[in-house]
Amino acid sequence: MNSREVVTSREFLASLDHGADWREEVEEFAAREGVEAAWFVGMGAVQDAEVWYYDQSDKEYRSVSFDEPLEVASCVGNVAMLDGEPFAHTHAVLSRESGQTLAGHLDAGTVFAGEVYLRAFEEPLTREHDEVTDLDLWL
Amino acid sequence: MNSREVVTSREFLASLDHGADWREEVEEFAAREGVEAAWFVGMGAVQDAEVWYYDQSDKEYRSVSFDEPLEVASCVGNVAMLDGEPFAHTHAVLSRESGQTLAGHLDAGTVFAGEVYLRAFEEPLTREHDEVTDLDLWL
Amino acid sequence: MNSREVVTSREFLASLDHGADWREEVEEFAAREGVEAAWFVGMGAVQDAEVWYYDQSDKEYRSVSFDEPLEVASCVGNVAMLDGEPFAHTHAVLSRESGQTLAGHLDAGTVFAGEVYLRAFEEPLTREHDEVTDLDLWL
Repeated sequence: MNSREVVTSREFLASLDHGADWREEVEEFAAREGVEAAWFVGMGAVQDAEVWYYDQSDKEYRSVSFDEPLEVASCVGNVAMLDGEPFAHTHAVLSRESGQTLAGHLDAGTVFAGEVYLRAFEEPLTREHDEVTDLDLWL
Repeated sequence: MNSREVVTSREFLASLDHGADWREEVEEFAAREGVEAAWFVGMGAVQDAEVWYYDQSDKEYRSVSFDEPLEVASCVGNVAMLDGEPFAHTHAVLSRESGQTLAGHLDAGTVFAGEVYLRAFEEPLTREHDEVTDLDLWL
Repeated sequence: MNSREVVTSREFLASLDHGADWREEVEEFAAREGVEAAWFVGMGAVQDAEVWYYDQSDKEYRSVSFDEPLEVASCVGNVAMLDGEPFAHTHAVLSRESGQTLAGHLDAGTVFAGEVYLRAFEEPLTREHDEVTDLDLWL
C-alpha cells in the first residue's frame, strides 16, 4: 500500500445546484476555492445518471445511462489534479423507487438535490498514468 | 453550488443500541450532546428497514418496507435542525444474503448492530423549505 | 447508543496495491503505522470479492463469492484491535457493468485499484464478544 499522511486545511458543507451536473459542481467548487486535493462524501438525488464500469481486461470504461430519477444513496469521491485541472473521481450508489440499486463510477448526473461534505488537504494530489491498470492514479 | 466552510468541534464513535431505531439513535444522541450540525458515516446490520424514494415529479416520498434482516453496507447522513429538533437525514445501502442490494433514504430501521462515526460542526445547520424541490434543505 | 468522543491523531490517503487483498492492505497498514483505532472510506475496483452476510437468527456469517471484476462504489470501515491485532471491519458496495449492485461485509477482495482515506484516533478501540449479537463489537 502506497500511503501518505495528510493534513486537512479546510472543511466544507455544500448543497449542489438543482439542474447542474453532480461531478462538475464539485470540480468547479475545487477550482474556485483553489482545492487541489480533497476527499468527499455525499448523498441526495439525481434526475439521471451516466455510470461507468471499468473493463479490467480491455482497460476501457463502459458506460450505462439511466434516464430516470434516482436517489443517491451514497457518493464517495476525491479531488486530485489531472492535466492541470481538479478532477473529482466520483463513485455513487443510486436507487429506484423499489429500492433496486445501481452503482459505479459516476461520470455525470443531473442534480435534483445534493448534500456533500468535503475535506481539503494541504498536500496537492496529482493523477498520473499507471501502466498496470491503464488508469490515472495518485500517490 | 452553495457552500459553507465549517469547523469540526467534536468527533464521536458510536455503537447503536440493539433493537433501537437507527435514525432515532442518531437524533437522540445529537439532542443529548447539543449537536446542531454534523456529518456521519456508518455500517452494520438492521432487522428491518423502511426505505424512502422521492418522487421528483409528484414531490412526495414513496415508502417501501423490508421486513427482513439486512446488512447496512453503507450509511451516509447529516444532522441539521428541522422545526427546532435535530433531524438525521440518512441514506443507506442494504444487502441480502445473496449480496442483492437495496438502497435509498432510510426513514427507519431496527438496529441489529451499528457502528457510526460522526463529526459535529461549530456552525448550526437549519433545514428550510425549498420551493424548487419541495424538500427541506440546508444552506 | 454507546458513544465515545475521539480525537483524530493522524490522517492518511492510501492507494492499495494492485493484486493485494483489500482488507489485508488496510490491516497491514494499521499494524505498520501503529494504528489501533481508525475510520476509513474508500472506492476503486476489485478483481473478485468474498462478501459476507450475517444470519441474525443462526448467528453465523454466510459467504458468497463473486469471481469477476467489480467496481467498488463505496467502502466504509473501521479499524479496531481484535485478539491483539488490528482488524479492519469492512463493508462494501460493488457493481457490475450493467450497474447491478452487490453489497455486504467484505471479507476479501483482490485489489484492481483502490483509493482510501483513513483517520486514526488517539483512543484505541478493542472488539469484544457481545452476547446479544454473538459478534465482536467495540465500545
